[in-house]
Amino acid sequence: MRATTLHGPRDIRVEDVPDPTLELPTDAIVKVRAGCVCGSDLWPYRDEATEGWRTIGHEAVGEVVAVGDEVRQVRVGDFVVVPFCHSDGTCPHCRAGVHSACTNLGMTVSGQAEYARVTQADGSLVAVPGGAPDPALLPSLLTLTDVMATGWHAAVSAGLRPGSTVAVVGDGAVGLCGVLAASAMGAERVVALSRHEPRQRLAREFGATDVVAERGKEATAALRELTGGVGADAVLECVGTGDAVRTAFAIARPGSTVGFVGVPHGVELPVNRMFATNVGLAGGMAPVRRYLPDLLERVLAGTMEPGRVFDLTLPLEEAPEAYRAMDERRAVKVMLEP
Amino acid sequence: MRATTLHGPRDIRVEDVPDPTLELPTDAIVKVRAGCVCGSDLWPYRDEATEGWRTIGHEAVGEVVAVGDEVRQVRVGDFVVVPFCHSDGTCPHCRAGVHSACTNLGMTVSGQAEYARVTQADGSLVAVPGGAPDPALLPSLLTLTDVMATGWHAAVSAGLRPGSTVAVVGDGAVGLCGVLAASAMGAERVVALSRHEPRQRLAREFGATDVVAERGKEATAALRELTGGVGADAVLECVGTGDAVRTAFAIARPGSTVGFVGVPHGVELPVNRMFATNVGLAGGMAPVRRYLPDLLERVLAGTMEPGRVFDLTLPLEEAPEAYRAMDERRAVKVMLEP
Repeated sequence: MRATTLHGPRDIRVEDVPDPTLELPTDAIVKVRAGCVCGSDLWPYRDEATEGWRTIGHEAVGEVVAVGDEVRQVRVGDFVVVPFCHSDGTCPHCRAGVHSACTNLGMTVSGQAEYARVTQADGSLVAVPGGAPDPALLPSLLTLTDVMATGWHAAVSAGLRPGSTVAVVGDGAVGLCGVLAASAMGAERVVALSRHEPRQRLAREFGATDVVAERGKEATAALRELTGGVGADAVLECVGTGDAVRTAFAIARPGSTVGFVGVPHGVELPVNRMFATNVGLAGGMAPVRRYLPDLLERVLAGTMEPGRVFDLTLPLEEAPEAYRAMDERRAVKVMLEP
Repeated sequence: MRATTLHGPRDIRVEDVPDPTLELPTDAIVKVRAGCVCGSDLWPYRDEATEGWRTIGHEAVGEVVAVGDEVRQVRVGDFVVVPFCHSDGTCPHCRAGVHSACTNLGMTVSGQAEYARVTQADGSLVAVPGGAPDPALLPSLLTLTDVMATGWHAAVSAGLRPGSTVAVVGDGAVGLCGVLAASAMGAERVVALSRHEPRQRLAREFGATDVVAERGKEATAALRELTGGVGADAVLECVGTGDAVRTAFAIARPGSTVGFVGVPHGVELPVNRMFATNVGLAGGMAPVRRYLPDLLERVLAGTMEPGRVFDLTLPLEEAPEAYRAMDERRAVKVMLEP
């Protein structure tokens, strides 16, 4: 099949690789209808020295073309949303809603390709009722595999309550989805921290009531003023850098929780500040499967259109340009069509 | 008055100092009936270089002997429990239950002395109904000023639910009170991590169903075995050292919360592990006043006897011996009677 492959820092290619196969009786193979590049793909893209090459991409929707002998819930021909992390749905962690800590955890590893292997197909895949959807729905369905579910997880982890004031740190696809989640959950005031005009606009369309363009101490001061000196009732940290985490804790009101979903890079948590202010931290890798049925219903009902985070669509063959566009912040998120 | 004073590392004395006075119209002065030494007092005792001297001690119960002009809820003659942190009860943080982040925060600074000044008397002090209590109740009432409320806060912060399996890291007074809190809140299984036989015994009397005497990796292995490989549903971290925090995160099940109340010393939070396992951290300096009415009722009703953490009572004049006994772990907690 044709697949995006990573060879070394900024050396990304599309080339022929062996098709994935059913390796276990609980596997399924999905013919990818749409994949995309994640902000977290940029970390290995920028840094990773690989031995030879590896496929990349953990977000995909498409059609099931093969299932293992033990797969019962999913059939060939189903059009499915593939959570980036695969889970059995039956272990103690899945039953507690922490599918991302499944004892049989798997990952999509060729989402930017023609085919993807899904481990734990029964526990992971969610079929779209009625089969292949209206193509206009593809972008939104694709966000459910990761970024929308991740933004939702940030809001859940932060303990967001209706009527509250929420601040969202990060204006990438996850941050924007966090704004959408906060708004859908009934936050009265949603403050988006964003310096980029097109992203500010989308944040407002997703429900942001206020935008703070400042960074660092100025952002903290602006947030304090917006909240009468109190701080935000809940903070969604959707970046994962040290600066973003520092800002998140600085704007959180005492007793609140920072919901964090950005893969941490160079983060040192301010434990003394957390102790003095009783600001907690919760979140992590999103248990996508937990939220999927609810989010799918919202997307199909048209009450939520997270697919608007895609501002560029390219054929799979142009994956290298997709990475460049996101790396240079020319695009928020790029969809790839095999 | 006679007061315990700190002059430098391990240089603690009892000497004559000026009586505290009403400095603000919201102040009260309490004649200390009983004070005590806190585990957190040992940090400055061991390390702190002071300019001249300062009084010490933040736990006290006693009789109100003077109130400022604006004090309305508390009267001279009331026998009161003094939360170690004073709060106005009216600011946004107090109204949200985070009294330890009050915008008018104060602290008891001469609890190991004859008299203590209480700022924000109306918002802070809770009178014992009926005046001076049975002397047998003094130790338990004294724990409500800090350690019992702090153990309770650890359990609340960890999101403890009835029927769950709880692990408590630390067998000091706070950890033991954490065991008592977990038990009172309906935990089905309470695992106390303790290496010291007398403390293990008290932990069991306070409701611990299991004791793990191992430390580090062995403790983690023991906890995993006790929980069928899953980990604890909630963890109370009641020490504040790097080792204790590492253990707490290692034994917490994915998706759970470590409630932390030990003042952090040399703690580096394992952010990558937290992300991968969705184990959160919550807690901090306890909002004692929030829990005080409920805990006072339990103590007066005899359903809870946290005062059993005191295993030594000395006259105030022997405060230096009280510090030595706790520093050398000869005593769990020492009560001082002026």
